[in-house]
Amino acid sequence: MDNQKRIAILGVGLMGGSLALQLKDRGLSKEIIGVDHSEIHQQKALELGLVDKIESLEEAIANTDVIILAIPVDSIVRILPEVLNRISDQIVIDLGSTKSLLVETVKDHEKRGRYVPTHPMWGTEYSGPTAALKGAFEDKAVVICDANDSDEDAISWTRFMFKSIGMHQIEMTSKDHDLHAAYVSHISHITSFALANTVLEKEREDHAIFEMASGGFESTVRLAKSNPEMWIPILMQNKENVLDVLNEHISQLRKFKSCLEKENVDYLKELMEGANRIKRILK
Amino acid sequence: MDNQKRIAILGVGLMGGSLALQLKDRGLSKEIIGVDHSEIHQQKALELGLVDKIESLEEAIANTDVIILAIPVDSIVRILPEVLNRISDQIVIDLGSTKSLLVETVKDHEKRGRYVPTHPMWGTEYSGPTAALKGAFEDKAVVICDANDSDEDAISWTRFMFKSIGMHQIEMTSKDHDLHAAYVSHISHITSFALANTVLEKEREDHAIFEMASGGFESTVRLAKSNPEMWIPILMQNKENVLDVLNEHISQLRKFKSCLEKENVDYLKELMEGANRIKRILK
Repeated sequence: MDNQKRIAILGVGLMGGSLALQLKDRGLSKEIIGVDHSEIHQQKALELGLVDKIESLEEAIANTDVIILAIPVDSIVRILPEVLNRISDQIVIDLGSTKSLLVETVKDHEKRGRYVPTHPMWGTEYSGPTAALKGAFEDKAVVICDANDSDEDAISWTRFMFKSIGMHQIEMTSKDHDLHAAYVSHISHITSFALANTVLEKEREDHAIFEMASGGFESTVRLAKSNPEMWIPILMQNKENVLDVLNEHISQLRKFKSCLEKENVDYLKELMEGANRIKRILK
Repeated sequence: MDNQKRIAILGVGLMGGSLALQLKDRGLSKEIIGVDHSEIHQQKALELGLVDKIESLEEAIANTDVIILAIPVDSIVRILPEVLNRISDQIVIDLGSTKSLLVETVKDHEKRGRYVPTHPMWGTEYSGPTAALKGAFEDKAVVICDANDSDEDAISWTRFMFKSIGMHQIEMTSKDHDLHAAYVSHISHITSFALANTVLEKEREDHAIFEMASGGFESTVRLAKSNPEMWIPILMQNKENVLDVLNEHISQLRKFKSCLEKENVDYLKELMEGANRIKRILK
């Protein structure tokens, strides 16, 4: 297997840009070609040395061995079939935060085997090429979905790539992925957005409200800075799972509300001690 | 003004222990005496060099110039009147996360002027003497409440102390403090506790749920590790404000729910862009 590839990255923002840096650093790329509809992003990606050159999608597909989709999930749904139509035997990998709809969209495509659906569990609340970070992805998990539906050489190089950039790999179905992602990622974004709105709403009448904000507040609300262009399609595509988690979360909040209203200290203690069990999972 | 004092700290845990380290480091203390009902904490505080010696509350009051209450707010309500009963002209400072009930409890006490109600806006989700950190409090805000009700020398030394450990000071009424604290601190703890319970509940049937947890999840849920002994009395004492914020927060979450149910992408975008305005406040 020739492990060094010519790689096209669609979307040279936070994810695509950070991946490009890691691929170069680990010597996985002969050349990295950036594809991006934003001229500002194209320019920035070249300036920052994220990519070696910028090409159109058509040129990039013709000139590379691997095509990585690092764009919002609504764009992936649109562009993935087009990419599969154009390739010969290139490997196509997407990094989207949802998986079921993408997989469903191309399930009968004759080039389905060339496609590997993945989700690296790393990100920040920032976006664009300037948000790209060196050393990203290291020691984080990446989910590879429905591995049996991809060709062996495609899965094999994808595994090699993620291993080389320091990620540990989890395999599951795209359906299970979307359920789990709703619980450990998508809901956190909704609670942060809603918490920001809760406090900003109050600030309209009380300007001093943020003078006291400290680390705890910042920690729970930082995801509210996330980009709507990226997050709207994620939540819409994973609507059913996200609604299930959101309903459960609202019902958990109502338990706290009821404890306070009824001054039920015993049950409040039980709820908090239950939540403390998260120590098992978080370091 | 003799700025170097003999200082008693009641509660040698996260807050008291960290403050002790800073007071020593900045040369504000002639001697630091620890008071703690837990023998394990007494021993640990001596071992870690947080305090110079351990005494009973009675001894410590008799032997010091400043008494700092760094204990849960239900204990402050109980012990503060007792401390004011025993002092001559010592300064008494508390660091509790609520203020109104404490101030109300001693408002007619003849030694009220010796008491300065404060709230340093720093903390972590850990507790006990081993959680104490060097360099804590630096560049954070401290709220000093109802300053006009404290004697001038007491306020003056308290300001000097917080300035010396690197904090910037905000003054407000204890009533305003409790309202603001509900928005920028207390609600964040409830959302974290509830989010932890949401996901832990699901984990009962699906053990793989946490394999994918990454930075975003950790950030929104880390406060769920907080100590119930500290947080139950805070939420109960600030019940009215916390319930107001909690109701608003649940109604903000319901807006997201409704957007998803109705596939109202425009309104979802409006909500997220509204939340993005938090960038103004958080760096």
